[in-house]
Amino acid sequence: MSGRVESRNGGRRVLLAHGGGGELMHRLIRDHLVPPLDNELLAPLSDGAVLPDPKGRLVITTDSYVVTPLEFPGGDIGRLAVVGTVNDLAVMGAAPVALSLGLILEEGLPLTVLDRVMASIGATAEEAGVPVVTGDTKVIERRRVEEGGNRLAADGLFINTAGLGRLRPGVRLGTDRVKPGDAILVNGPLAEHGLAVLSVRDGLEFESALRSDAAPLNSLIDRVLDTGADVKFLRDATRGGLANVLVDISESREVSIEVDERQVPVAPATRHAADLLGLDPLTVANEGKVVCVVCSESVSVALAAFRDHPLGRQAVCIGCVTGAQPPLVELRTRAGGRRIVQRPYGEELPRIC
Amino acid sequence: MSGRVESRNGGRRVLLAHGGGGELMHRLIRDHLVPPLDNELLAPLSDGAVLPDPKGRLVITTDSYVVTPLEFPGGDIGRLAVVGTVNDLAVMGAAPVALSLGLILEEGLPLTVLDRVMASIGATAEEAGVPVVTGDTKVIERRRVEEGGNRLAADGLFINTAGLGRLRPGVRLGTDRVKPGDAILVNGPLAEHGLAVLSVRDGLEFESALRSDAAPLNSLIDRVLDTGADVKFLRDATRGGLANVLVDISESREVSIEVDERQVPVAPATRHAADLLGLDPLTVANEGKVVCVVCSESVSVALAAFRDHPLGRQAVCIGCVTGAQPPLVELRTRAGGRRIVQRPYGEELPRIC
Repeated sequence: MSGRVESRNGGRRVLLAHGGGGELMHRLIRDHLVPPLDNELLAPLSDGAVLPDPKGRLVITTDSYVVTPLEFPGGDIGRLAVVGTVNDLAVMGAAPVALSLGLILEEGLPLTVLDRVMASIGATAEEAGVPVVTGDTKVIERRRVEEGGNRLAADGLFINTAGLGRLRPGVRLGTDRVKPGDAILVNGPLAEHGLAVLSVRDGLEFESALRSDAAPLNSLIDRVLDTGADVKFLRDATRGGLANVLVDISESREVSIEVDERQVPVAPATRHAADLLGLDPLTVANEGKVVCVVCSESVSVALAAFRDHPLGRQAVCIGCVTGAQPPLVELRTRAGGRRIVQRPYGEELPRIC
Repeated sequence: MSGRVESRNGGRRVLLAHGGGGELMHRLIRDHLVPPLDNELLAPLSDGAVLPDPKGRLVITTDSYVVTPLEFPGGDIGRLAVVGTVNDLAVMGAAPVALSLGLILEEGLPLTVLDRVMASIGATAEEAGVPVVTGDTKVIERRRVEEGGNRLAADGLFINTAGLGRLRPGVRLGTDRVKPGDAILVNGPLAEHGLAVLSVRDGLEFESALRSDAAPLNSLIDRVLDTGADVKFLRDATRGGLANVLVDISESREVSIEVDERQVPVAPATRHAADLLGLDPLTVANEGKVVCVVCSESVSVALAAFRDHPLGRQAVCIGCVTGAQPPLVELRTRAGGRRIVQRPYGEELPRIC
């Protein structure tokens, strides 16, 4: 990774002293952290930001990001920290109003890496149309991963973003609205984020073919909701992948879900990588994919709206909700068989987001 | 620390698999994270929380907590994570409405430690009168601190909280309102948090005498603002201590500040510890102390209000704002001399909050 190269070149790095609330920290904030985020709410640099008078109900969400490596094909930890939180708001039917940014920097992090991540945060926030209005920075000692030898932790940076959103009036989303007959849509090919990160981490050969799908989904979701389609539930399929979302729906509503494997979109390169690694693409994390449960009458309207947006060109209906008991998620396989889809027990891919 | 003892006893610990978004993570959340925080906004456990319709303008703030050790006399990282964010809102004149909670757990963290910290978060949130409405959990690999030998990192846990607050109507706080003649108040003895943490860390003998002052200041600040005293600026004196706050005021307003050392409250045990460690109590972090700039006519009303609250019994006026140029913070010492107070350059006490 670039961090190592710069290490040899002796580039400027984060020091513990950058975290002390003193002069050095003021300079770090002024020169490296604020410029990429420039907006009038952040500008006063006080302990928090005052927001304009909100109209309507608010939603608050938070996520921490610990992905390793910090940079990967299709994104980096900064892009992830914005899209993850924006998407959590969007799937609740909320338009993002403001983000907060908490940085935990590891001593020794090259400032050039920090600058690239901050630029990515700024660009992604602009793409999503939401300002970063307040932040905080801490510095921790450099550490080693305990794994086998003495390999230096390549991490250097953890990010937390909290997001405040305004709930769309009239939208009612929740598993309580899901019932047999409803259709399950996804906006495009699955498992790309997790496999892109893993491929770089393990230095696998197919690396070049895989890119993270990390993207802010708020404008895509707006487009679908704007049609008036009867959307009942939305969830971005991050950790635990599609499987986790479908099992959540099935368990909380005590319904079954039938998924047609032939309809589940997985790109050939992704499938190849998953096979090689022994992973099920249904359980691999996405960062730009939403699972959408709609009333069967709304399927064509919703699909058309998805496909009308750059992030939904390959949207498809992958299955439906049924009343079969006991409540299970079942995959009808290509070969014509059936298998039960389970939530992964633990961590198939650690540090993926 | 207790973590080490439990390590030998083989108590239950956090596993990487707890972070995977799977079944194990669901159990961790259900059994360990939600019960201490019980409230109706958090209960749905969706990706975010919907808040009641807010009245008035909102304030958002965020802070990450990386203190080591996780538990210290007078508090722990959980108490700190609540009071730090509540106090950031309070000094902006905002009543806390909701907190988000982002946990980064290190693999190997004893679940009993996590449970104690979560209980502390729940209790402190109740003390401050603010619910934790949404959260997120990540797990990272166990690491070693690189310091000299191979000492295991005793950390195991980083916390981010973001806070949403409602601005008090009619309150106008800011350094732009500060002018020569104003008085500087503090609500009690300084430097107790930083020295309490440091004393445990270094195993110093005076440990027993020192306790962190970590406390939510919102009800104290409410009491002062309720009097109608002309309060111009409030800031909690955390990293960088009193010195950092005073230099901030002086720099941003281009005024001088004169502090009378005889009035600056520092407990004998704190002073002794600071002397031993070669630290200036003015630059040591507090977690329950607020610097309050008031119009000179309001000093007695504000002091009376402070002293009427358990967290302000020892409130005093420590100095005043002057028009002397160039703008400096000056300490009139006990011995009758003068010295310039500077913001610490970097990190005097790393990982103090």
